[in-house]
Amino acid sequence: MKNENEQPIGVFDSGLGGLTVVKQLQRILPNEHLVYFGDTARIPYGTKSKWLIQRFAMEDALFLLEFDIKLLVVACNTASSSALPILQNRLDIPVVGVVEPGAIAAVKETKNKKIGVIGTSATIGSGSYTQAILNRMPEAEVLGQPCPLLVPLVEEGWLDGEVTVLTLKKYLKPLMEAGVDTIILGCTHYPLLEPVIQRIVGPQVKLIDSGKETAKAVQKILKDLDLLNPKVKQSEDQYFVSDSPEAFSRIGSIFLGKQLPKVERVDFDRFLIEKSSSPLLQNLNEVVHAE
Amino acid sequence: MKNENEQPIGVFDSGLGGLTVVKQLQRILPNEHLVYFGDTARIPYGTKSKWLIQRFAMEDALFLLEFDIKLLVVACNTASSSALPILQNRLDIPVVGVVEPGAIAAVKETKNKKIGVIGTSATIGSGSYTQAILNRMPEAEVLGQPCPLLVPLVEEGWLDGEVTVLTLKKYLKPLMEAGVDTIILGCTHYPLLEPVIQRIVGPQVKLIDSGKETAKAVQKILKDLDLLNPKVKQSEDQYFVSDSPEAFSRIGSIFLGKQLPKVERVDFDRFLIEKSSSPLLQNLNEVVHAE
Repeated sequence: MKNENEQPIGVFDSGLGGLTVVKQLQRILPNEHLVYFGDTARIPYGTKSKWLIQRFAMEDALFLLEFDIKLLVVACNTASSSALPILQNRLDIPVVGVVEPGAIAAVKETKNKKIGVIGTSATIGSGSYTQAILNRMPEAEVLGQPCPLLVPLVEEGWLDGEVTVLTLKKYLKPLMEAGVDTIILGCTHYPLLEPVIQRIVGPQVKLIDSGKETAKAVQKILKDLDLLNPKVKQSEDQYFVSDSPEAFSRIGSIFLGKQLPKVERVDFDRFLIEKSSSPLLQNLNEVVHAE
Repeated sequence: MKNENEQPIGVFDSGLGGLTVVKQLQRILPNEHLVYFGDTARIPYGTKSKWLIQRFAMEDALFLLEFDIKLLVVACNTASSSALPILQNRLDIPVVGVVEPGAIAAVKETKNKKIGVIGTSATIGSGSYTQAILNRMPEAEVLGQPCPLLVPLVEEGWLDGEVTVLTLKKYLKPLMEAGVDTIILGCTHYPLLEPVIQRIVGPQVKLIDSGKETAKAVQKILKDLDLLNPKVKQSEDQYFVSDSPEAFSRIGSIFLGKQLPKVERVDFDRFLIEKSSSPLLQNLNEVVHAE
């Protein structure tokens, strides 16, 4: 058993997007060892139900707990929006999501108290950002805009160009018409679109990168709990995925801004069958029938 | 136990797309009872690995076998491309995919022997259409074009308009420059884009709807095996999904061209844990490590 300070930080996302959070964590917490899990077998989460996202998130957390992590980062806006309370409730380590840090930064930044949020259908549908903002600034006007095409556009590598610009203009129009002065990039894929979004909305609108704010929040929690790692990191961070490690390595380097070390595939279905009696996975099975 | 002719046909897809095949089956085989499974918890398949797609397909088939089906339709180009041989090998009922019927129709249709295929990354990457065409017309020139943005565009409901037209023009350009006279719509979502694709490529290019061809193939197999249902259908077809039945009902009606009856959610993770010792699911667990 390692000294608690030297235990790793666990980070999960539905796929690649969380690597933009890893990039920020590596930047400001260079001593910390990270273990990343990308659930590429079940990506995307953003179009799925709250019920299912909670289950997936708990399963992802269960995998990272195998590494004896000292803190868990939910580097996925969709999972943070739908599953953070249940994770914080069931796990006995600190769990940090990306929504609260992004909301706090937006509240600090806005002058006219009109804040836009862009994200997946699930993130916007959950109202999590709106709630987090209104808790701190009840008089704020929050406009959420689901942008389901942006993740596929980023993953296709179309980070600029006519299609991307037109799609963004269509999505951003209601926010600009409402006169927001701050927009939260409520999806970990969106920092890659930041330059083109900034160009469309103009320099007077402030863009909030939730991933960057989350890294700062993690730093603060580790400091407050006296859990920072004082030792210089000796080994590479570890990366695991539930499918397609080669594609993850290739596209992941764009998100991380550098080459990834070895990415390992986990047989996640087998892992879940082995762990099916874990208390963390109980009572997540509610079946709802629709008419 | 029902008379074999009266047993249902099982149809699965990663999500909604297979409903375009259901629509064609209902049109030409009105007596047949259909049981549909859409694996919406793990949609999309098109960006995932061959290994994983084979596993998902076998799990989907296992679910439909619970209904004592007489024939299985793999109403998903991605699963047909990657998993048809293993399904046909392990199941003791006829298994019909969408690739062969589409390829056969294209070979019949082409005059200049230049055939284009559009589909997901996994479908095009598998080379399944190319292989199926070359088996019948070795001198054909086949051009595959992965179009990962089309499924999200259809699911966003952007079936026409500037973004969709520009995206399609970008994807179709290499096919038009190569002078194809026939294009296979190698994804069950694409029939919804047929009018705009036809407008872009012009009336001289023949579009092949794999779903329509598949329904004809099913009819022929049932006839040859003397398995057609002679009785007029008394009950509704059944629809099951692994997530979000409400969204499936709502968007599904666009694919099916009419309202859906009750759509039921299956707790698929629990089903898989119960069935984990099924012989059909063994030796699908190969874990590959990537550098």
